[in-house]
Amino acid sequence: MTLPGPIAPPARLLMGPGPISAYPSVLQSMSNALVGQYDPFMTNAMVETQQLYRGVWGTANDATLLVDGTSRAGIEAAMISLVRPGDRVLVPVFGRFGHLLAEIAERALAEVHTIEVPWGQVVPVSAVEEAIVRVKPHLVALVQGDTSTTMLQPLEEVGALCAKHGALFYSDATASLGGNAFEADAWGLDAATAGLQKCLGGPSGSAPITLSERAVDVIRSRKRVEAGIREAGDASADDFVRSNYFDLGQILDYWGPRRLNHHTEATSMLYAARECARLLLAEGREAVIARHRTAGDAMLAGVQGLGLTVFGDVAHKMTNVVAVEIPEGVPGDAARSAMLEDFGIEIGTSFGPLHGKVWRIGTMGYNARKDAVLTTLSALESVLHRFGASTPRGGGVEAAADVFRAAATASSSPVSP
Amino acid sequence: MTLPGPIAPPARLLMGPGPISAYPSVLQSMSNALVGQYDPFMTNAMVETQQLYRGVWGTANDATLLVDGTSRAGIEAAMISLVRPGDRVLVPVFGRFGHLLAEIAERALAEVHTIEVPWGQVVPVSAVEEAIVRVKPHLVALVQGDTSTTMLQPLEEVGALCAKHGALFYSDATASLGGNAFEADAWGLDAATAGLQKCLGGPSGSAPITLSERAVDVIRSRKRVEAGIREAGDASADDFVRSNYFDLGQILDYWGPRRLNHHTEATSMLYAARECARLLLAEGREAVIARHRTAGDAMLAGVQGLGLTVFGDVAHKMTNVVAVEIPEGVPGDAARSAMLEDFGIEIGTSFGPLHGKVWRIGTMGYNARKDAVLTTLSALESVLHRFGASTPRGGGVEAAADVFRAAATASSSPVSP
Repeated sequence: MTLPGPIAPPARLLMGPGPISAYPSVLQSMSNALVGQYDPFMTNAMVETQQLYRGVWGTANDATLLVDGTSRAGIEAAMISLVRPGDRVLVPVFGRFGHLLAEIAERALAEVHTIEVPWGQVVPVSAVEEAIVRVKPHLVALVQGDTSTTMLQPLEEVGALCAKHGALFYSDATASLGGNAFEADAWGLDAATAGLQKCLGGPSGSAPITLSERAVDVIRSRKRVEAGIREAGDASADDFVRSNYFDLGQILDYWGPRRLNHHTEATSMLYAARECARLLLAEGREAVIARHRTAGDAMLAGVQGLGLTVFGDVAHKMTNVVAVEIPEGVPGDAARSAMLEDFGIEIGTSFGPLHGKVWRIGTMGYNARKDAVLTTLSALESVLHRFGASTPRGGGVEAAADVFRAAATASSSPVSP
Repeated sequence: MTLPGPIAPPARLLMGPGPISAYPSVLQSMSNALVGQYDPFMTNAMVETQQLYRGVWGTANDATLLVDGTSRAGIEAAMISLVRPGDRVLVPVFGRFGHLLAEIAERALAEVHTIEVPWGQVVPVSAVEEAIVRVKPHLVALVQGDTSTTMLQPLEEVGALCAKHGALFYSDATASLGGNAFEADAWGLDAATAGLQKCLGGPSGSAPITLSERAVDVIRSRKRVEAGIREAGDASADDFVRSNYFDLGQILDYWGPRRLNHHTEATSMLYAARECARLLLAEGREAVIARHRTAGDAMLAGVQGLGLTVFGDVAHKMTNVVAVEIPEGVPGDAARSAMLEDFGIEIGTSFGPLHGKVWRIGTMGYNARKDAVLTTLSALESVLHRFGASTPRGGGVEAAADVFRAAATASSSPVSP
């Protein structure tokens, strides 16, 4: 075979629903030299990463760490470690990723109950409560932000409901964390997982996770130390987790003071995850959310300024992604290809019932920026014009620019109460 | 909290059993910008990566790809996708990682049968055959190189035995691939997995895997497309894989022409995996193995030249790691710490029955180099001297240098038959 050359990606502005263009310093972090997995530098970097993610999640949970895999590795680790075969799991579904949580629970042989709302809506808390009372679940699994519909499920009240009815509360915040409020402790989460490739501004391949003491107790009760490194006194529970890789009990022992060998930590991805969290906390958690809100509001105003129809309940939209209906007569995939090939800008297609009907445009992490938003709207106007759609000239860019101007004015104003 | 600065690892020469210092161009590859998961550049990079790993594995298997996780993610994906609850699995064990294969099969609720030899030996092929005849396994799972003992299990004849008796044949080549011969097709492998952090010279976090058509047939028979992206005509088998993340059927659909969304490929790790394979094939598969053999022979001669006793059956040692008994009176961990803190060189400790008794010294990937070997031996002599061990002065370095000199002479000689 003829060998290809070194990897040399084309310039891309990733404005889809994720992955998005990573922060430059996150990319740079991965070029740092490796160290051994028990090097004091490495174990300290792990401790620092845990501490940083406590800040990101809004938690004091000791059990705050990374699962080595993509975001759904984190989901599966949480589900399979917390749920025994036959346990009842309640999944309120409002998009594709709710179906994924149900799917993962089904594969873990849980007794899965779902409630569903149409795509574009969120689940009323009253419906969640009704289902909890009816199903009496061991675990309630709820996506916070479902990129398939752009909706942001309110979580604030669900933790208290779960606590009241004795259920564990898990949320997948992959699409939302960093760009929308998330308060693991204040909202009563027992488990939450994410990925780096959305608002955290890193590459896919590492899954931050945080676990409450109650969740850790469940996991510890299923403890099994693997043969080969098992020592006298290491019990093995009968209801051990049906996975070695995702057994959070073992992963906790690797990240904890015992430093019991499990996998070999993915060092470069840990560097990336650490840098994602470091950047977020350095800018300030509230400031990063505000930046996402401004960029998202600007993109929303921009697509509306282009005369496009926004999909779903805008009042419950995530800050960081908007879905717009593809205008009548415009070939959706050809237009996306033109965006990519002629402008180097990626916007997203859709899944399931929305496939071929909407584009999804993200403003996340590094790309929650004025120039990224305005460049995208300008190119989108050009492409819509090329395909014969009628759009107000400059209507997208100027509407978005107004939002950025207003935000800049507000933030430079004297402090008001 | 006070935020830490950007990650800034200390200079380390990683001469343990892995992870080892990655090739510089592999580290650089990860700093490249991300692209979208369905960008033509990305899907082409995935196809290139598959092609490159066919060269690494010695296979024409179409199903040659990456699992997004560390090496044991690849092991678990192979096992859990090929083995149904109750299936008989035979694991010949000759070190810690044999126990791991058995462990993973047990967690998959297989009926696991093991045969064992003492650490430091390999399993006679006759014993493997006897066990196959007796157990009639669905799958034989055999580590090729077990870093816990440094042994390299001969695999050449096992594939034919498995084929004769109707068993699938799987091998974990994490520790050996790239530094020792591996011929997936010629040896009759149905599945093989690895990681990047050993002889392939990359970071942990991506697991190359290759599957024969027979293995793919088993996996396809258990097909289940997840809800949310399932379409009319997508069947769902009753004996579906009890994991979503590790369901190779879904992962194959993501890597295959259907490009059915599963996880979001870990782009930066794919860049790294691609570069690891590209470097290996550019240097030449045989040349890389020869370089590992020379470096390994030199390290072996070197530790013997220092008067150290080598552990295990040297005739069956992997090229890329050697275990040496810690000399009487030398505090093993303090000596390793001195190597790390005073010389920036990492050598390895050991697991299980060898814990505290041997050090493991690796010569892998980028570090299968003369300067890395001689520097390590020189530092080791200094440390042994400091701790009062009697060693022939320069005996390690000169014995190793002789090996490199002889190899250089041999390779620069006129071609002989």
